[in-house]
This record gives sequence, structure tokens and C-alpha cells, in this order.
Amino acid sequence: MSGPGVTLGELAARFGARLHGDPDVRVARVAALEAAGPDALAYFVDPKLRGALRGTRAAAVVLREADLADCPAAALVAANPAAVFARIAQALHPDPLRAGPPGVHPTAVVEPGARIDPSAWVQAHAVIGAGAVIGPRAYIGPACVIGEGVEIGADSTLAAQVTVYRGCRIGQRVSIHAGSVIGADGFGLARDDDGRWLKIPQLGAVEIGDDVEIGACVTIDRGALRDTVIGEGVKLDNHVHIAHNVVIGAHTVMAGTSAVAGSTVIGERCAIGGAVGILGHLRIAPGTRLNAFATVTHSIDAPGCYASGTPLQPVEQWRRNWARFKSLDAMARQIKALLQRVAALEADRKGEPKGK
Amino acid sequence: MSGPGVTLGELAARFGARLHGDPDVRVARVAALEAAGPDALAYFVDPKLRGALRGTRAAAVVLREADLADCPAAALVAANPAAVFARIAQALHPDPLRAGPPGVHPTAVVEPGARIDPSAWVQAHAVIGAGAVIGPRAYIGPACVIGEGVEIGADSTLAAQVTVYRGCRIGQRVSIHAGSVIGADGFGLARDDDGRWLKIPQLGAVEIGDDVEIGACVTIDRGALRDTVIGEGVKLDNHVHIAHNVVIGAHTVMAGTSAVAGSTVIGERCAIGGAVGILGHLRIAPGTRLNAFATVTHSIDAPGCYASGTPLQPVEQWRRNWARFKSLDAMARQIKALLQRVAALEADRKGEPKGK
Amino acid sequence: MSGPGVTLGELAARFGARLHGDPDVRVARVAALEAAGPDALAYFVDPKLRGALRGTRAAAVVLREADLADCPAAALVAANPAAVFARIAQALHPDPLRAGPPGVHPTAVVEPGARIDPSAWVQAHAVIGAGAVIGPRAYIGPACVIGEGVEIGADSTLAAQVTVYRGCRIGQRVSIHAGSVIGADGFGLARDDDGRWLKIPQLGAVEIGDDVEIGACVTIDRGALRDTVIGEGVKLDNHVHIAHNVVIGAHTVMAGTSAVAGSTVIGERCAIGGAVGILGHLRIAPGTRLNAFATVTHSIDAPGCYASGTPLQPVEQWRRNWARFKSLDAMARQIKALLQRVAALEADRKGEPKGK
Repeated sequence: MSGPGVTLGELAARFGARLHGDPDVRVARVAALEAAGPDALAYFVDPKLRGALRGTRAAAVVLREADLADCPAAALVAANPAAVFARIAQALHPDPLRAGPPGVHPTAVVEPGARIDPSAWVQAHAVIGAGAVIGPRAYIGPACVIGEGVEIGADSTLAAQVTVYRGCRIGQRVSIHAGSVIGADGFGLARDDDGRWLKIPQLGAVEIGDDVEIGACVTIDRGALRDTVIGEGVKLDNHVHIAHNVVIGAHTVMAGTSAVAGSTVIGERCAIGGAVGILGHLRIAPGTRLNAFATVTHSIDAPGCYASGTPLQPVEQWRRNWARFKSLDAMARQIKALLQRVAALEADRKGEPKGK
Repeated sequence: MSGPGVTLGELAARFGARLHGDPDVRVARVAALEAAGPDALAYFVDPKLRGALRGTRAAAVVLREADLADCPAAALVAANPAAVFARIAQALHPDPLRAGPPGVHPTAVVEPGARIDPSAWVQAHAVIGAGAVIGPRAYIGPACVIGEGVEIGADSTLAAQVTVYRGCRIGQRVSIHAGSVIGADGFGLARDDDGRWLKIPQLGAVEIGDDVEIGACVTIDRGALRDTVIGEGVKLDNHVHIAHNVVIGAHTVMAGTSAVAGSTVIGERCAIGGAVGILGHLRIAPGTRLNAFATVTHSIDAPGCYASGTPLQPVEQWRRNWARFKSLDAMARQIKALLQRVAALEADRKGEPKGK
Repeated sequence: MSGPGVTLGELAARFGARLHGDPDVRVARVAALEAAGPDALAYFVDPKLRGALRGTRAAAVVLREADLADCPAAALVAANPAAVFARIAQALHPDPLRAGPPGVHPTAVVEPGARIDPSAWVQAHAVIGAGAVIGPRAYIGPACVIGEGVEIGADSTLAAQVTVYRGCRIGQRVSIHAGSVIGADGFGLARDDDGRWLKIPQLGAVEIGDDVEIGACVTIDRGALRDTVIGEGVKLDNHVHIAHNVVIGAHTVMAGTSAVAGSTVIGERCAIGGAVGILGHLRIAPGTRLNAFATVTHSIDAPGCYASGTPLQPVEQWRRNWARFKSLDAMARQIKALLQRVAALEADRKGEPKGK
């Protein structure tokens, strides 16, 4: 390629899309349909944005065959426009964290025995513990604290202020955002005879597979006696809490502020909404979907989509229904009794002569 | 003013209150009604504290006209005692973080091209990225990480350990508490054909208006293709999670651990309780109030107060009601059928001769 | 003791267990039943793991008298196996953070007037504010920020990236995990006449008793006019949020992501599950237990176990029940009316001659 950006022809060939339009037109960036200018590529999948598609000034749009008629610009036709767009966006917008040359910042502290690949970045005020291993092209952002013996795989990124406790192992191409804490002690307590709580030492670690993405302020506790395991390709949004001994299967996603209690095993390719809570020692079947706000109190054997909770209402109406919830069991029993009494009345009526 | 503290006469004049009592009495600090001594100013608005008002040893109390009779001390009478008290407390207790002289701590790292106003504080181990702009009298606390090209407005305060990612813009008089993360990547994923998740680069930023206060361990994600926007005067409590592309209108408040999913637009002057969850792509009308624990699954067009959830009960009772919730629809249908059957019985009875 | 590990005889004597088996066998570490080898000690309390007990290759197992028959190895018999195991595990696995010699790392910043006990550890890039006091054998981990005048008691541990704001007091043997923030401003606001929010200065501090354990990314806000108080022996899991003025009684435990709003007083020895929310200005009786996901909107006077919430269901079923919740009050009134109408029909029938 020459000149700024990439030609549509090149994008079509490289990302497996079918081009409608001039293959020599160049795009330099991606943008939303309504904000895209003549140097930008947009995408369309959400029918609610059809108006924005029709009015876009983008150079080209990634979309499905069926939406071609509504596109006033060139189009890259694909069966999965979001995936094609994600790949093109990654190519047009390379990671800004790695713009500078690699190396260890002079203010970083590297303890004895740590091995840092020469192609890795260790930024200002980072601390690399004794015996830690930082892989090729890994990026350890400012003020990260990497404990003793930690392993960080190739091409992984810890944005800033991430703490990884001793002995945890992080795979390749993993991304962890600021404020997250990997490998703090699990909440392991034994009740003593006088009712006080004794700490049970947490002797496992955390193992994070390849291609995992972890948001900001996420906590993943180390295991008590074995490891907490995050499978490859798992994506965890901000503020997620994963307790000790939890195992999360590959390619499962979990949205913001969800929490999983200790020793629960979540299968592969689950899709877990935001603010979901899952009790400990459960098993969640692979492929399970959980709506936002779901509270999971028992294992799920059959994949499917599950939910719990009550609807939002104006507070005066809600309060009346809310109060009635306390009588729900009584109501059910009243209904059952009514059914019997009405049936008796009906039987009685049938026994009577019709009419007069 | 001379001597320690401020006279009541001066406070009355400066903060627009009407004084009952000696204008020459001095107060040096604010305190709670029950803890205040003769150098302290207290305030009274909560009727449950009327006993504490009657017994206070404070030099003076800020209160409403109607409560004057219960006040054994001098009084500063105001229509909005809490607001007057807040202003006086701010005046009597200046920000301790700015007690020392401004300047850049020798252990701070300032990357090339960053511009730091000479009246600003940059504390120990802070990192200021290339091209960042730190405004007059801004305070960048210990171990904060300020990304490339970030702008921090005049008089803003980042207490400690705050991360602001590249390109985010923070207004004037903004306060951000420790552990908060501004501008991490949003949770933007595209599902690939094989079920794996592809990252969609997050190319927007975060824009935070003037006079915003952000608690500890808050996360506000950068937008995907446009900015995430926090309007002026917004107040976010600890652990709040704001996803990508969200827009929060001016002067909206949100209590601890609440979360807003991607692309939702919240109007101005909303009051959102703690532990509230709001799904993505919704619109919340200006002035909406949401009770603590509300789960919002659809847009709110009419301002008002909304809630969801069920009441707390002793667990044995709760479990019976909880189980019945699964049959709520069946119960409703049974009631409907009963209504018909009873109506039929009643009609039948009417058709019969009265009495014997 | 000599040689690696400790003899079973020594453990039995030191930790008050009764030994079944060879007192000269040595164990070097603890492990789970299924993973333990011949140098390891395991424990058994959960009946679901009886199969693992029967198949264990551990050198010895801590268990109850009643389970002795199922144990193929030596046994340390105790009435409270979990507590005995916790104590032995602590003895066999000493704190790895204190493995090196104490002292202040050269990159740490110690402000004037701070007093650091010579037996304490202050790790890389930590910041110790003016006048702070760090007690004997305390461990201040990498990148911790300790504010002005803070007191940290003997043998306390701040793992890494912990911020403690000015004036907060932390007892002895306290453990705080990474990313936690102690003493940020409470969410104290007064509504001004124009609807804007004014900050009320937060002038109290946080007081944390002895033997408290605090997880990762926990926030405990400083009091408004008095202190927020965490009683001795309290255990708070990750992401817990404690608002200003809250008082938590001794030996209360609170699991992950739970939150307590301002000024609530929680009694001693409560057990609070995960994702629990407690409104402000409430009183929770000592010994209260709250199930995970409970939402507490009123004070609890009688200790007991409480819960709230609805069950998880397949989404199609849930949606029907969810929608009916809006009519719960109407349903209750319909049932009441039906009861009256059916009673009237029954009375009517009784007034009739039987049969024909």
C-alpha cells in the first residue's frame, strides 16, 4: 500500500469481504455511521441505525448483503460484518501503548532473578518481583506490581496499576486494564470455637489462559489449595469478582460487576450479563446464558438462557407489589383452597336440577 | 477576621443566614450536634436528631426558622441549612492536600511535551504522559498515572492511584478518589464465526465536565467510536461502573456500586440510588429517581421515582415465597379462571328462586 | 523439630488434636485431599468429599472422630477440623511477603516526621506521608500510598497498591489486599437551591480494629463528622463498599461485592453473604445472617437469617412471572374478593335444602 490509509480493494482481499465500489478508494480510520467522513470506514448491523446508514458520509460501510440497498457509499459485504469490522479496526488503529521503543524505564524496579525479554516494555515505576518472567513484546504499564515468580506471556498488556501476586501465570496476548488485582488471597476462613474467624492460608495461584481480556478493577483471587483458572479467550468486564478455586471455561464472557463465589465451575462459551451473582460450589453448563441481574443459587445442567428478578415500576405501584411478595405463599395456598371450594360448589350445582 | 476561627456575625453575612445570638462568638470548626464543643458549629435538619439539638453544646447551629425554639445555642437561620453548613464547612476546613507548596515531586515522571502549570501539585511517583496538560492549581496525587495527551482542568484533584488513559479530558474543580480508572477500554466484542470473541478497538475517549466528583474505585470506560460523557456537576460514588458511550446529564448523582451498561443516555438531575443496574442502549428521562437496588431493563420516558426488587424476610418465610414466584403466572391464570367460574356460579344462583 | 517438615506427633501436641497413626511421620505442607502426596496434610469436613477422603494419598488428614473409619491415612482427630487445619497451615506456610529482610526500599518516599519501626518493611515506590507511624513488623507493599498522620499497627500487612488517606488508624495484624482504598471522602452532598450538589467536607477518619482482613478493591470511606469504624476481627471480601459513618461490630464477615450505605450500624458476629446491599441509617442486630443477594431496606432487630430475591428460571418462564409481579397487589385483592364471593356462595348453598 502507498499513501495514507488502505485501499478498499486491499481490505476486501485481506479480510474476506466482497467489495461494492471503487477498489482504489482509501480509508485511514474507522468511525460510526453518523460521524464518519470520506476517509473513514463504518459498519452496519443494528437495524435501529438504518437511518444513519442511509445518511452516512463514510467512504465505505461493512454490512450484510441484505442491507446493500440502503448504503449510499461503497460497501464491504460480509456474513459477519461486526467481526470483519473488528479486524479492520485493529489493523487501522494499532495499539498506541507500544508506539515507543521497548525497554525498562529507569524508574522501574526489577528484583534479582527477574527475566525481561528485550522486546518487552516495562514502564515508569513498575515493580518486577524476583524470578518473574516477562515475555516477548509484553507491556507492563506504569506502576504495575508484578510479584515474585509471576509469568507474563508474549504480547500481553497490563495497562497500568495492575497488581499480580506471586506465582500467578498469565498467558499470551492477555490484556488487563488498570486497577485490576490478580492473585490476592481468597476469602478462606474457618470459624474458631469462640466464634472468631481464622484465616486459612491461600496456597494456590491464578492461571490465566491465552487471549483473555480483563477490564478495570477486576479481582481474581488465588486458589486455596489449587489454582483459580481462567480459560483461554475469556473476557471479563470491569469490576468483575472471581473468588478462589473458580474455573471459567474458554471463551466465556462476563459483563461488568458480576461476581462468582468460590469453587464454582463455569463451562465454556457461556455469556453472562452484568451484575450477575453466582453462588459458590456450583457448576454452570457450557453455553449457558445468564441475563443481567440474574442470581444463581443452584447448578445449571441444561444450557439455555436464564434470568431472575422483578420489573421496574413507579415506586408507589412497586411498593404495593413488593409488600404482597411476603404473602405469595399464602396467596398460592388460598388459590388452591379456592379451586377446591369452587369445584365443590360446581359439583354441587351439577347435582341440582337444571334451571328451576 | 482576627483570632482563631470566624465570628458568627461574619458567617451570617458571608453565607446569607440570619443570626440569633452574639455576633462576636467565634467558631473554628464544624462538628456533629452531639460532639460539638464551644468552638464548633453544628447543623440540624433531621427531625430524628431533635434530642441532640436540644442537648448540644455547640457554639451555634445552622437550622430552619421553625426549629429555633429547640436550639439552646446561637443559631444561623437559613431556608436550606444543609447547603449553608456545607459552604461554611468548606470555608473552615480548607483542602488538606494543598497545604504544602505546589510543584513536581522529584520522583514523579514527566514525559516529554507534558505541560504542568507552575501552580499545580504533582506528587510522589506520579507519571504524567507525553503531551498531557495539567491546569492551574490541579493536584495530581501520589502514584497517579496520567496518559498521553490527557487534559486536567484547573483546581481538579486526583487523590492518589488514579489512572487516566490517553486522550481523556477532565474539567475544572473535578475530584477523583483513589483507585479510580478513567478511560479503560469499553467491553466491545464481536463474535467470530467460530464462537471466539474479537476485540473491537475502543477509539473514543472520556470527557468529564466541571465540578464532577468521582469516588474511589470507579471505572468510566472510553467510548468505542465516540466519547463517554459525564456532564458537569455529576457525582458518582465508590465502585460505580460507567460503560462505553454512556452519557450522563449534568448534576445527576449515583450512589455506590451502581452500574450503567454501554450507550445508555441518562438525563440531567437524576438521583440514582446504590446498587442500581441499568441496561445498555436505554434513555433515562431527566429528573428520574431510582431507588437503591433498582434494575432498569427499559427506557424511562416519564420522570418519577422507580424501584424494583423484593422485600427482606426471615429465610424460612422467604424461601416459600421465593419458590412460589416460579408459579406466579400460573397463579394469575388460576385467579382469572376462578373469577369466571365464580361469576358463573353467581349468575347461576341469581337464576334460581330466592330462598327455599 | 529436625529434618524437613513437622512430625504428626508434634502437630497433635501443638494444635490439640488426637493422633491416630505414627507420630514420627513428617508433613511439610498442606494440600487438598485429592492432590495431597505423602508429605502433605489434608483435612475433611465436607461430606460431599467423602470419596476423596477414602482415596487420599495424604500423610494424614485432620477430621472429626466420626469420619475416622473412612480415612486410609493417619488422622489428627479434632472437634473443629477446619480451625485446626487453618492453624497448621499457617504454621507450615509462613507469610512469603516477609521472607526478605525488613527495611525501607530506596525508591520508597518517606515524608518528614514519619516514624517507621526498624522491623517494618516499606517496599518499592511506597509513599509514607508526613507524621505517619508504621509499627513493628508491619509490611507496606509496593506502591502503597500512606497519608499524613496515618497509623499502621504492628504486624499489619498492606499487600500492594493500597491507599490509606490522612489520619486513618489501622490496628495490629490487619491485612489489606491490593487496590483497596481506606479513608476516601464519603458521599456527602447537600442540594443547593438551584438543584446543584454541594460537597460536605468529610472530616472524620477510618478506624480499623485488630485482626481485620480486607480483600482487594475494597473501599471504606472516612466519616463525615465522626469516624467510620471497623471492629476487631472483621473480615471483608473483595469489592466491598463501606460508606461514611458506618460501624461494623467485631467478628462480622461480609462476602464479595456487598455494600453498606452511610451511617448504618452492623452488630457483632454477623455473617453477610455476597452481593448484599444494606441501606443507610439502619441498625442490624448482632448475630444477624444475611443470604447472598439480600437487599436490606429496614433495620433488623431480631437476629436470624434473612433473604430476599427471586429464583432463577429459564428466561421464557421467568419473563411471564416477571410481568405478573406488576399485578401482584391486584392478584391479592382479587383473591380476597374471591374468598368473600365463594364464602357467600357456600353460605347460600348451606341455606338451601340438601340435594333435592
